[in-house]
Amino acid sequence: MGGESGKMYRVVFQPDGRQGMAREGQTVLEVARELGVYIESICGGRQTCGKCRIRVANGRFDTYGLLSTTEHLSPPDAGEQACAERCGLAPDERLGCSARILGDVVIEIPEVSREKRQVIRKDVGSRTLRVNPAVRLYYVEVPEPALEESRGEWERVQEELATHFGLEGVQPDVTVLQEVQRSLREGKRGITLSVRQGREAIRVQPGYHEDIYGMAIDVGTTTMAGHLAHLRTGDVLATVSMMNPQVTYGEDIMSRIAYAMRHPEGRERLHQAILNGLNDLIRQATSDAGITPQDIVEVVLVGNTVMHHLFLGLDPTTLGTAPFTLAIQDAVDIKARDFGLDIAPGGNVHVLPCEAGHVGADNVAVLLAEAPHRVEGEIHLVIDVGTNGEILLGNRESMWVASSPTGPAFEGAQIRHGMRAAAGAIERVRLDPETLEVRFKVIGEARWNTEWPDNALDAFDITARRAGQKQRPTVVKARGICGSGIIEAVAELWRVGALDDSGRFVPGLADETPRFVPEGEKGAFILAWPHETATGQSIVVHSDDIRAVQLAKAALYTGTKLLMKRAGIEHVDRIKLAGGFGSYISPAHALMLGMIPDAALDRVVAVGNAAGDGALMALLDQDAREEARQLARWVTYVGTALEADFQEEFVAALHIPHRHDPFPHLASLLADAEPWRSQRRARVQRASARRSRRRRRRGHT
Amino acid sequence: MGGESGKMYRVVFQPDGRQGMAREGQTVLEVARELGVYIESICGGRQTCGKCRIRVANGRFDTYGLLSTTEHLSPPDAGEQACAERCGLAPDERLGCSARILGDVVIEIPEVSREKRQVIRKDVGSRTLRVNPAVRLYYVEVPEPALEESRGEWERVQEELATHFGLEGVQPDVTVLQEVQRSLREGKRGITLSVRQGREAIRVQPGYHEDIYGMAIDVGTTTMAGHLAHLRTGDVLATVSMMNPQVTYGEDIMSRIAYAMRHPEGRERLHQAILNGLNDLIRQATSDAGITPQDIVEVVLVGNTVMHHLFLGLDPTTLGTAPFTLAIQDAVDIKARDFGLDIAPGGNVHVLPCEAGHVGADNVAVLLAEAPHRVEGEIHLVIDVGTNGEILLGNRESMWVASSPTGPAFEGAQIRHGMRAAAGAIERVRLDPETLEVRFKVIGEARWNTEWPDNALDAFDITARRAGQKQRPTVVKARGICGSGIIEAVAELWRVGALDDSGRFVPGLADETPRFVPEGEKGAFILAWPHETATGQSIVVHSDDIRAVQLAKAALYTGTKLLMKRAGIEHVDRIKLAGGFGSYISPAHALMLGMIPDAALDRVVAVGNAAGDGALMALLDQDAREEARQLARWVTYVGTALEADFQEEFVAALHIPHRHDPFPHLASLLADAEPWRSQRRARVQRASARRSRRRRRRGHT
Repeated sequence: MGGESGKMYRVVFQPDGRQGMAREGQTVLEVARELGVYIESICGGRQTCGKCRIRVANGRFDTYGLLSTTEHLSPPDAGEQACAERCGLAPDERLGCSARILGDVVIEIPEVSREKRQVIRKDVGSRTLRVNPAVRLYYVEVPEPALEESRGEWERVQEELATHFGLEGVQPDVTVLQEVQRSLREGKRGITLSVRQGREAIRVQPGYHEDIYGMAIDVGTTTMAGHLAHLRTGDVLATVSMMNPQVTYGEDIMSRIAYAMRHPEGRERLHQAILNGLNDLIRQATSDAGITPQDIVEVVLVGNTVMHHLFLGLDPTTLGTAPFTLAIQDAVDIKARDFGLDIAPGGNVHVLPCEAGHVGADNVAVLLAEAPHRVEGEIHLVIDVGTNGEILLGNRESMWVASSPTGPAFEGAQIRHGMRAAAGAIERVRLDPETLEVRFKVIGEARWNTEWPDNALDAFDITARRAGQKQRPTVVKARGICGSGIIEAVAELWRVGALDDSGRFVPGLADETPRFVPEGEKGAFILAWPHETATGQSIVVHSDDIRAVQLAKAALYTGTKLLMKRAGIEHVDRIKLAGGFGSYISPAHALMLGMIPDAALDRVVAVGNAAGDGALMALLDQDAREEARQLARWVTYVGTALEADFQEEFVAALHIPHRHDPFPHLASLLADAEPWRSQRRARVQRASARRSRRRRRRGHT
Repeated sequence: MGGESGKMYRVVFQPDGRQGMAREGQTVLEVARELGVYIESICGGRQTCGKCRIRVANGRFDTYGLLSTTEHLSPPDAGEQACAERCGLAPDERLGCSARILGDVVIEIPEVSREKRQVIRKDVGSRTLRVNPAVRLYYVEVPEPALEESRGEWERVQEELATHFGLEGVQPDVTVLQEVQRSLREGKRGITLSVRQGREAIRVQPGYHEDIYGMAIDVGTTTMAGHLAHLRTGDVLATVSMMNPQVTYGEDIMSRIAYAMRHPEGRERLHQAILNGLNDLIRQATSDAGITPQDIVEVVLVGNTVMHHLFLGLDPTTLGTAPFTLAIQDAVDIKARDFGLDIAPGGNVHVLPCEAGHVGADNVAVLLAEAPHRVEGEIHLVIDVGTNGEILLGNRESMWVASSPTGPAFEGAQIRHGMRAAAGAIERVRLDPETLEVRFKVIGEARWNTEWPDNALDAFDITARRAGQKQRPTVVKARGICGSGIIEAVAELWRVGALDDSGRFVPGLADETPRFVPEGEKGAFILAWPHETATGQSIVVHSDDIRAVQLAKAALYTGTKLLMKRAGIEHVDRIKLAGGFGSYISPAHALMLGMIPDAALDRVVAVGNAAGDGALMALLDQDAREEARQLARWVTYVGTALEADFQEEFVAALHIPHRHDPFPHLASLLADAEPWRSQRRARVQRASARRSRRRRRRGHT
C-alpha cells in the first residue's frame, strides 16, 4: 500500500523523537514499524482493536522545523470512524493503522499506545507500575490454503506475524500446534496468539481477544499472597492471600528443612503441598476476577530461599547448614506444565533470582518495589517483616542485606488467638491509659468496636441472620488477632505501663481492671469480650504471646543493628516497614516495641506487601526481571547470625524497647499516657524493692 | 597456566589449517580453544577421558614453512602416560590437554577427535555417517562452596563449563536443577552433563561418564523401525522394528484419518497407541543394547504426514481432504516429557520436517540418506516402498516428489500368510521353472529350505527342544511371508509362466504340481509344506494376495510414470528401491513385476530402510537437520493422483509387467525359464481360444 506517488515526507515520532522519511500514502503504523518505533496494536492494522492510537502535534512549527497539521494525515475513513466509536477514541486521537501520511508530520504516541508505559495503581500502594509485559497478544487472519500449498498452517501464521507485526520465525509451543487447526476453523481463519518475548507462541484462541492475564505470587513461610493483573492494561483485578499449606509440616523454615531431611518423601510432600496451595490461590484469584486459571498465561513467583527451593522441587537441605548453598541463584523460567501449575498449558513461570543462601527472591522483589538502590545520598533501611525477616540497608552506592529468623508471631501464628490477616482479625488496638479500656478494629469492619451498634448481629453467624433477624444491623466481629494487631496490642500495653520493660505484666493489674486475668507469674489481658467476638469466647493477649513478640522484634532489631555495624553505618535516614501478611504495620508501635532503630516518626513508613508488589512489577515489566538479576548479584550479604556479638545483642534487644539503646523519639509517643504509666511503673519498682527486701531477709536468717 | 615465559610460537592445526600464536607452556587444548578449533574432550583437560587425541606432524617442513617436531611439545607426564595406557593411545598420539607448546608446531587432529567426523557403518547399508551430535557430554568438577559464597551450585557449574569448555551461560533443564545437588554429592563434586547445542544441560549424572545414546525411529503406517546409536562414537547398538499398534484402527492412512474423525476420542486414541508403540520400541532397543530408556537423551522421528500429525497429537483430518493442509511443515523440537516419551526426562524429540500434505518427514529422511539432490547430470529415481509409497525424481537441479497409496501388501499385511519382516518370515523365493519346486529362505535362518537337515527341530518349538532332543540340529522354520518374500513369490510364479500377465494362475497347473490348489476361478500356490513351517500348516500364495501385489505395484508404477511425465523426464539413470520393512527388495523381481520402469539390472539398487537411515543421520549430525529443513522446502510436490490420466494408467499398470509399456531389459531375466514358460503361457492362449469358441457358440444358439 502507498508509495506509488513517489512523494516522500518527514515523519517525527514523539516523545522519543525518532524520525525518518515515509512514502506518501503509507499508514502511520507502517512507518512506525519501519523506523522501529513501537505502537501498540493487537490486530496488526485491521481497524479492529483500536489500540494503535496516535495524535498529530497539530498546527505548530515543531523544534524540527516542521509545520505539522492534521491535514497531513488522511481523514478517518468509515472503518476508523466505526472503530473510534466502538473503542472510545478521543476527538484528537487517530488510528495509526488507517491514518496515512500526506505531508510532513509530527506524530505523538500517547502513553496508552507505548511499548513501555506507566500506570499508577492505587490498589497497590499507589505505586507506579511499568507495563511492558513478556507476553503480548497478536490477532492474525490466515487465508484458506490453496490446493498447491505445501506449507503448513503454522508457516502461514508465521508469515502473518512477520508481515503485520514484524515478528520473524515465531515458534509454537506444542499445545499451540495441537490447537491451531481447530482455532483457525472456529475463528473463521482469525486467531489471537499470545506470544512470549516475540519468539514463542504459548497460546492460541479462536477469533479476536484483547484480554491477557498473569499472576504475581509471594510465597511466604506462613502466608502466600498474590495479585492477579491484566498484562496489557496493568489493572490489578484481584488480590488474594492464604495460609501456606506447608505450615502443617513445620512453623518455620528450619522445621521445613528438617521435615524434608527426615522423611523419605518429605521434600516431595512439601513440594506438592506448595503446588496445591499455588493452584488454590490462582483458582481463588481467577474466580474473584471472573476468569479461569487457564486464562493466566504467566506467573511470577518470589519467596525466601527455602520456599524457592521447595516450589521448584529443589533440595532445600543445603540451606539448613553452613555454607548454606543455593542450588541456583539466578532467575528461572519454566513451562507452567513442568512446574505443575494449572494455568494456560503453554504458560510460563518466572521465578525471580535469590541473593544468597538466606536471602531469597522475595527480597529481590522488595528491592524492585522500594528501589533503595536508586536513592542518592540518604541511607535507606527496608525491613521486610515475616516469619523470616529480611533487612536491606544502603543506597545506590552499596547495598547490604541480612536475614533474621523472626518466627511466625507477626503473621499471627504461634499466638494463642493469632490468625491470618483475614476478615475478623483484630488489626488495630488502642488502650485508654487511665481506664485500660480497649478500642480495636477488625478487618472487614469499617467501625471501631466502640462504634458498633448495641444490638448488632454477628456477620459470621449465618443461622442467626437467616432466622428473620435481618432488621438488626450487621457487624464483622472479632475472630482473632493478626500480626499488626498483636504488635499494637503489646506496644499499647507497654505504652500505658501495664507491661514493664522486660515484658511482664506489672503487679496489681487485676485490681485495676477485670480485663487482666492473672495466672501465676504470667497472665492474660482480654482484648475483646465474648459479645464482641464471632466465637462467643474472649480474645486475649497472653504472657506467652508477648514473649513471642519480644523474640521476633529482638531478632529484627539485632539483625538491623549488626548489619549497620558491619556496613559501618550509624544512622539511617528513612525506614520502610514491609510486611506481606495483610495490614500495614503501625510505625509508631513498631518504634515503641523497639523493632526498628529509633527515628522520627515521619521518617518511618509502612509499605505493605513490598515483595508481592515487586513480583507484580516483574510480572508487568520484563525489563524489571533483568534489573532483578543484576540486583541479586550486586547486593552484599551479611550473615548476622554468625557475628560474635549476636547473642549478647539479642538478649539486650528483648527488652522493650531495648536494655541499652536510647529511643529519644519515643518521648512524644508516650506523653499522653505519662501520668498513669508512671504510676503503674512505680508499682513495679515497689514490688521489686519488696522482693529485694525479702531476699535480704532470707539472706539474714 | 603457561605464558609466563613470554615466548610465543606459531601453532597450525590440521586438517583445516587454522593457525595462530600460542604462549610457551599453553596446552594444545587451550590453544585450540582460543583459535576456535574443536578438539573432542569430555573431561575438559583433566587427563581423565583420553578423548583429546592429537598428533604432531613430525620432523618435516610444513607448507607453512615450519619445522614441526615432537620436541616442540612437552613430553608426556605421568598423568598422560597413565591415561594413554588406560585409553589405548597410539604411539604417535598425545593428549591435547597435557601436551604443552614448546616451539612452532603443526598439530594434526585425527578424525576421532574432530567435531564433525565420519564413520562408516556396515550395519547401516555401509553408509558413511557424520558424527556431530546435538547433545555432547561434559565432565566438570565443582569445588566445595566457601562460606561467603552467595552463588548457587548451578552458577558454579556454569563457571566450570565456561572455563574448561568455552560454553557460556548454559541453562539447566528443570530436571537437571532438581538433580544437580544430589549428583554433586554422589559424584564427590564431579558430574557429567549432557548439554544440547552448547546451550541447555538436559541431564546430569554423578561422576565421569562417556556414553550417550539416542534413537532414530521411522514410524510407518504398518511398521515402526528404529536404530539405537551411541551419539559420540556413531555406533549402532541395536536395530529394532515392530508393528505400528495403530494398525488395529485401520490398515492404511485414510482409514486412520477416518477413525480420528468419526470417534470423539479417536485422535487421542491413535496418539496414545503410537506413543505406547514408540515407548515399547525404545524399551526393546535399549534392552537389546543392555541400557535403559532413561539412558536415551535424544530421539529423532520421521514418518509420513499422517503418522507425523498423530504422533505429535495434531489433527490429521485436514490431510484427508483437499487442499490436504499440514498443521506444520517445519521441523519440530519438543521435550520428551511433553511428547510423552519415557526417555531421559530432560531429553529432546526432534521431528524432521514434512514436504507437503502427502509427503512427510520419512521422505525427507530418504533424501538425506540417498542424497539424490547431490547428484550432478544423472537423473535419479528413489522409490520408498511402504503402505504409503513415495517417489523422488531428479538431481541437484530440481527434485520432484509424489506419493502413492500402495497399500500394506509389501509390508506383509492384508496377505493371507503375510507377516512383518521378523524371524520366520519367508524373505526369498525361487521357483524351478521345470518342476515348479520351491526354494525359500527365512529370516533368522542362514540356509535355504533345501539345505535344512532332514531331522531338524523347529527353533520356535521350545517344548520339543526342552524335551531332551537337544542333539538334533535346529532350524528357524517358516511362519509367514514378508514383503520381499511376496514380491519374489509373485514375480517367480510369473517368471516360470504359472501366472499369466493379468495375474491369474494358468490352466492345468494342478496337473503339473501338487503345490497348486485350485479354488474356482482362483487358487493358491503352496510355498512351504507343513513340515517346513513352525505352525505345521502350509504357507501359500493366494490369488487374492497376487491381486494385492498387483494393486500395490501398479500404484507405485503409475505414480512414477506420472511424476516423470510432469517433470518432463523420459529416462532415469539410476533407480533406488528403499523399503522400511526389513529385508531388501530384489531389484530383479521388482523389475519383473513392473513395479519400477524398465532399466538395466545394474542401474537398480535396493537400499533398505533409507528413511530409518536418514533419521539416524539426523540423529548423529545436527547439521543434517538444517539440511533437511532446506530440502523440505525445496522439493516440488506433484499430486499424481489428481492427474486426469491416473486411472487409465493405473489399470494398464495392473498387468505384469504392464499392458502397454515394453520392458526390454526383462528378456535376460526370463531366458533360463523360457521353454517351460512358453509351454504354460501357450496353455493360456489355448484356454482363451476355447473360451472364445464357447462364447461364439452361445452367441449362435
